[in-house]
Amino acid sequence: MGARERRVVLVAGVDQSRVAQKPSLDSLTQLLKSDLDLVNRLIIDRMQSPVALIPQLAGHIVAGGGKRLRPMLTLACARMCGYCGDRHVALAAAVEFIHTATLLHDDVVDASDLRRGRATANALWGDKPAVLVGDFLFSRSFELMVADGSLRVLEILSRASAVIAEGEVMQLMTTGNTATTEADYLAVIQSKTAELFAAASRIGAVLAKRPSDEEQALDRFGRNLGTAFQLVDDMLDFSAREAELGKSVGDDFRDGKVTLPVLLAFARGDDKERDFWRRTLEQLDQQSGDLERAIDLVERRNGLADTLTRARAYADVAIEALAPFDDGPERRALIAAAAFAGDRSF
Amino acid sequence: MGARERRVVLVAGVDQSRVAQKPSLDSLTQLLKSDLDLVNRLIIDRMQSPVALIPQLAGHIVAGGGKRLRPMLTLACARMCGYCGDRHVALAAAVEFIHTATLLHDDVVDASDLRRGRATANALWGDKPAVLVGDFLFSRSFELMVADGSLRVLEILSRASAVIAEGEVMQLMTTGNTATTEADYLAVIQSKTAELFAAASRIGAVLAKRPSDEEQALDRFGRNLGTAFQLVDDMLDFSAREAELGKSVGDDFRDGKVTLPVLLAFARGDDKERDFWRRTLEQLDQQSGDLERAIDLVERRNGLADTLTRARAYADVAIEALAPFDDGPERRALIAAAAFAGDRSF
Repeated sequence: MGARERRVVLVAGVDQSRVAQKPSLDSLTQLLKSDLDLVNRLIIDRMQSPVALIPQLAGHIVAGGGKRLRPMLTLACARMCGYCGDRHVALAAAVEFIHTATLLHDDVVDASDLRRGRATANALWGDKPAVLVGDFLFSRSFELMVADGSLRVLEILSRASAVIAEGEVMQLMTTGNTATTEADYLAVIQSKTAELFAAASRIGAVLAKRPSDEEQALDRFGRNLGTAFQLVDDMLDFSAREAELGKSVGDDFRDGKVTLPVLLAFARGDDKERDFWRRTLEQLDQQSGDLERAIDLVERRNGLADTLTRARAYADVAIEALAPFDDGPERRALIAAAAFAGDRSF
Repeated sequence: MGARERRVVLVAGVDQSRVAQKPSLDSLTQLLKSDLDLVNRLIIDRMQSPVALIPQLAGHIVAGGGKRLRPMLTLACARMCGYCGDRHVALAAAVEFIHTATLLHDDVVDASDLRRGRATANALWGDKPAVLVGDFLFSRSFELMVADGSLRVLEILSRASAVIAEGEVMQLMTTGNTATTEADYLAVIQSKTAELFAAASRIGAVLAKRPSDEEQALDRFGRNLGTAFQLVDDMLDFSAREAELGKSVGDDFRDGKVTLPVLLAFARGDDKERDFWRRTLEQLDQQSGDLERAIDLVERRNGLADTLTRARAYADVAIEALAPFDDGPERRALIAAAAFAGDRSF
């Protein structure tokens, strides 16, 4: 199957009505622009240290840190809940610091050289400072929360941090293991990714002193959005279209990670295909052309389309979780963000 | 100079009246036995996780975790300040978890295979789980503090965690750098080691709701004790007697760490000696016999004796810091612990 046909299959797997809507984060970023500027300024302020290497290395990962989706969830959820103060800025920065610390340690653990097409901190400065600056940012995150003074927020985010670490260790156990079940995989991504999305959203309700059922609704919103986000992330790693756009694909494959597209392709594959997956993922014996074959197999076995279908189902549950909240610009932007999480191409 | 002569020099460097007193941690461990049992039980309880590798790896480092000096400082300082409740147990466990997380990350950063003669977690399970279980224990530490509910304690220990990470990064910058000054070295050990001793002691006064000057006195006590402790640690790494006792020496030398014994020997050495230090520490070009020569040089240039003299001076300041507190078994045991920190041989 050629690249053109592959693209058609992928696009066919996407609900065309959704493609027409082009879900994006634009309304969220526009709505939160001034708050997000304050978050970015606070992040830069709080990553300073007399030890010059710390702001250098932290600045690199923060600058390349992507969409700022997690802190935007804190900002928007707080506003949607009617919160009028400015504490959400510091807590959004704390959430982003936890995420950044996790990225630094992830890249060391995965021995990654590139993240979003830029050299990783560990590639530029080595593993040692990347581990230690991760620890520094994690501590700074707790300092920000302590200065805010809410024990409830500290409880939610310290618990989330422990769950993230559990998810990362679970992921190590499933790496290279083609016997990984879909339930194992879901447990991994709900811990390593969705937990922080849930916590980031939930603290919006805590800030606004909303009742427990609204806290739980925002937890459910963030958790399902985060699950959708990670499913699409894992799908995009095998996306021929991404490869054509010059974006990095195949990182998970090279690491031997057993993600949902692979799980589905393995389960539906014939003996020869299973041998291929065992050789490339379990024994990490990968040769030229293997990534292309992997992309072809996950597409042919509907691994990509079915991963996207599941992602959209989680995004829909996230959107439903917002039902108790009044309509308004924040709620509409959060709905668009959930749709984006389940239907994005970057 | 033979091994026997070296031993004589070392013993000669130690104040014989102090050797006669044999300072030890015995009175502290006996006094705190029941509290320490509760701390150890809580540590085991709180390192559990459904992810089996986490308690396995954490159990290994916790079991080999040494003297429990930091949590004992929290326990004894709280009691000395008249605290009668049981919150000091959870906070002592939180302090030990921060220390344990730091050890796990340190061993990865130093690529150490052995700690106290046992295989390190990274040697047994690899760097990846060691980094991630460190993150887990660090999160658990904050969960323990949050459950305790004191924002003041959280403030002290989150700040200490950030300073520890700064100290570790500073240490990376001084490693392999023979231009490191004594001031640089002191900044490193006061951040990476003494800060946690200071925080562990200080929170004893916070628990007992003692006035700010007593908090500061305990901070000073812990900080000076911790500095003495690290100075002796760095001295023992070049101890011929340790080597004779079958204990591990030369770890810092092999890593290219520029500690006080080396700084002094370098400053006092002739051109040939400086060339030796530059080759072995800056270029890490080390051959058979180099460790023995390093040990010989630090001894001949009084690097060991002078490091010990400084350690004892810090221990004396620690003991003086306890002046405002009433005499009693805890105060006497803490004085003995400070004397031990500045005069120990293990």
